[in-house]
Amino acid sequence: MTEIRKVGLIGGGVIGAGWAARCLLNGIDIDLFDPDPEIARKMDEVMANARRAYRRLFPDARAPEGRLRLVSSVDEAVRDAVFVQESLPERIDLKQKILAEASAAARPDTIFGSSTSGLLPSEIQETMTGPERLVVGHPFNPVYLMPLVEVCGGDRTSEETKQKAAAFYRAIGMHPLMLKKEIDGFVADRLMEALWREALWLVNDGVATTEEIDDAVRYGPGLRWSFMGTFLVYRIAGGEAGMRHFMEQFGPALKWPWTKLMDVPELTDDLVDRIAEQSDDQAGDKSIRELEQLRDDCLVSVLSALRAQGYAAGATTKRYEELQWDRAQEATLESIVDPSKPMRLHDCRVEIDWIDYNGHMTESRYLYVFGNASDALFRHVGIDTEYHQAGKSYFTVESHIMNIAEASLNESLHVTTQVLGVDPKRLHIFHSLYRTDDGVLVATAEQMLIHVNTNEARAVPADDAVLEKLNVIVEAQKDLPKPAGAGRYVGAPRG
Amino acid sequence: MTEIRKVGLIGGGVIGAGWAARCLLNGIDIDLFDPDPEIARKMDEVMANARRAYRRLFPDARAPEGRLRLVSSVDEAVRDAVFVQESLPERIDLKQKILAEASAAARPDTIFGSSTSGLLPSEIQETMTGPERLVVGHPFNPVYLMPLVEVCGGDRTSEETKQKAAAFYRAIGMHPLMLKKEIDGFVADRLMEALWREALWLVNDGVATTEEIDDAVRYGPGLRWSFMGTFLVYRIAGGEAGMRHFMEQFGPALKWPWTKLMDVPELTDDLVDRIAEQSDDQAGDKSIRELEQLRDDCLVSVLSALRAQGYAAGATTKRYEELQWDRAQEATLESIVDPSKPMRLHDCRVEIDWIDYNGHMTESRYLYVFGNASDALFRHVGIDTEYHQAGKSYFTVESHIMNIAEASLNESLHVTTQVLGVDPKRLHIFHSLYRTDDGVLVATAEQMLIHVNTNEARAVPADDAVLEKLNVIVEAQKDLPKPAGAGRYVGAPRG
Repeated sequence: MTEIRKVGLIGGGVIGAGWAARCLLNGIDIDLFDPDPEIARKMDEVMANARRAYRRLFPDARAPEGRLRLVSSVDEAVRDAVFVQESLPERIDLKQKILAEASAAARPDTIFGSSTSGLLPSEIQETMTGPERLVVGHPFNPVYLMPLVEVCGGDRTSEETKQKAAAFYRAIGMHPLMLKKEIDGFVADRLMEALWREALWLVNDGVATTEEIDDAVRYGPGLRWSFMGTFLVYRIAGGEAGMRHFMEQFGPALKWPWTKLMDVPELTDDLVDRIAEQSDDQAGDKSIRELEQLRDDCLVSVLSALRAQGYAAGATTKRYEELQWDRAQEATLESIVDPSKPMRLHDCRVEIDWIDYNGHMTESRYLYVFGNASDALFRHVGIDTEYHQAGKSYFTVESHIMNIAEASLNESLHVTTQVLGVDPKRLHIFHSLYRTDDGVLVATAEQMLIHVNTNEARAVPADDAVLEKLNVIVEAQKDLPKPAGAGRYVGAPRG
Repeated sequence: MTEIRKVGLIGGGVIGAGWAARCLLNGIDIDLFDPDPEIARKMDEVMANARRAYRRLFPDARAPEGRLRLVSSVDEAVRDAVFVQESLPERIDLKQKILAEASAAARPDTIFGSSTSGLLPSEIQETMTGPERLVVGHPFNPVYLMPLVEVCGGDRTSEETKQKAAAFYRAIGMHPLMLKKEIDGFVADRLMEALWREALWLVNDGVATTEEIDDAVRYGPGLRWSFMGTFLVYRIAGGEAGMRHFMEQFGPALKWPWTKLMDVPELTDDLVDRIAEQSDDQAGDKSIRELEQLRDDCLVSVLSALRAQGYAAGATTKRYEELQWDRAQEATLESIVDPSKPMRLHDCRVEIDWIDYNGHMTESRYLYVFGNASDALFRHVGIDTEYHQAGKSYFTVESHIMNIAEASLNESLHVTTQVLGVDPKRLHIFHSLYRTDDGVLVATAEQMLIHVNTNEARAVPADDAVLEKLNVIVEAQKDLPKPAGAGRYVGAPRG
């Protein structure tokens, strides 16, 4: 399918407006029909949200926006469009009526997608001119961010239509899931609906409130469902023995009253075989051990992401980090580090999200590691959570970084730190980053920091106890040679 | 509860070993009993995974590990422990037998947690000495990362036991969900089981494979479930009209065959009222608009996190970013930027995950923004995805950063770029970061970059077409004054 530059949209509710936003942010022009007199305001609001999201998701790689035109009839919306998406209310009579009109007015090669959550495409296409051009493309809210679109044809849908629709959805950044069978509610909504109906029972029976039920999902299984579905999660839970073992072990639980859904399929040998085989295919050549690490890597990334939002499991993770900081603090104070040498206070490993498009540790992560090393030094000289909460902190005002060698995924690194100078308000430090395995110097950072009162945003002297500890280090290190990277300007001759 | 320094564990399977890992990484000593002859090897493997995860999640704030002792009897495991967690197989007779023995051997004030996924605490505690000390603390796999623990007492459990258990779980970084009622499967497992049973039907009926079902979750609703449960997600879908409207609109769908769970509660006025009120409480004073932005912020963070893993929806997002990069590239080539002034090629906004414990943009993010500005310059002079794929790229070798003012959450920033010099292998640039609203200079970066062949990791000349464009800029900017921050060393007098 040649690149689509223009799409017609029928219906501009939550879903239709979401389609419009996704298309516009992909540089596609939109002709949108919705009789709602408030449509312009509502589109503005959705676009504001969508732009905000894309600014963060693609900080420096965004296509120029397409042009939005609000039109006053179905005809105008479909007239020059090679692709039309329908997002009308879930009433079969309404969809049939409007699609009859739209398909008659459109060019004969125009493809139609329907956003229905559960109506059958075979019924939707009944009244259409050229019914082979209709496919369900069922998206999820917010459409501009959620990748999934379920693609399902009806009895009369052509294979070409399915392929063209999938190509279009892929070209606007989505993940088309091609369904083999037409079924009420398709796949995702059936799963959501089963969970939702169970949730209604729990409220009805006074077992839990809506908030408690939501918490049971988002602090628990929901975290895993963001990257692995229920079958792969259970496969891992089955451990080394695999999916068949899991089914044998937990199969009997299907008879237990663990949900109100007591009509369950018979676990025949055939069904167990089918699930075990499909699960093997799905896992590919990954061992359970590798799957566990993949799960953990994704969980850590998701927890870190939510920690940055301070929301849901991210709030728990943030509190947990503070607990860990304070325990590490206690231990640091008890540990003995020889201050007469550059002090090794921070070790780390090159993580997958530190890698840039060149395949090496990206430049901002060097400063991230040096920042963590500075934090380790702060803890070492007695700066704790309480000190920060009292509004006292060191701020970096100047940094000079030398990149000497590359660091690759999973390499162990460590930082040694020299304190070049200290006065009541200023701290002059020099970090050296080494590859731990072979001792190669990877990068250095010379930094000047100022001690500030964070409430008043002005320089103030550090606490005496902190200065005392820093001075002990300066004194112990005073005979160390000046590091090669210190005192340099950018482009100074090396040597 | 005074701080717990030692915990007894009975059972070291996937769940028991997960508890051990979480406790050890919190500095708590463990006495673990499991008759499995392979227990030492299995614990080693789980600890390797858990350490790996904590290194990433808490890069520089980790407590020193506790000590693991594998003991040879239940008595030894519980003898000096003030808290004992049981993770035996899901057989009520086995749990009753072992807990009878353990509770008789333990100190009278020892609290017992049971990891059962669905057995009732009233039954588990029947045989215990001091049954009031037993509570269910139901965790999720992997226990060392998943925050949720469902806390549920039986008929004889004391309130004090529940509170002490919750305090302990909180102290090891978890989110205890206190259940009011004892019910088979508690809350989370009932929801998971409903989804699982529906999934079994879908495989049984040949509608979808295990992989397709998993994809329907992880590319779609699972992403939202990682931070919002089903009620809050639906409240937002209901839009400005709120939860009552949603229930009225989608209530009839409960009668439709959208799952095999056709036994649904009657949507009486009373139940609708209860759900609407609980949902209002849960949303607090947040408007739908605010909830939408919170949802989008979390989604963007989760998608970014998974993009870093290149897995599931993250793989889709990565491909999407490449599409956006190439479209932005086309547009940049068409746009006109006056090269005789510092060129404004990059705008951004201070995001929530750029903020450090001081409440301002963290130092490594400055270099991140400057790196994005360099990428914009590269695109501007014709470096595209294809150029990178051919193994050609600019690498930063030296940076000097001046931090001049603070940047706060949500502030708009932009970077202007001067090209101070270029030769076939070297590129000398100077970025200035401004707060867009008031034009205040926030930071500067002087950088030297080397053009490399990334396959051979050595300096090579840039393509002529690129050099030509860079030289046009150098020539156009040659009469601009030298930036104040250029040529400085760290600590040089300011002025």
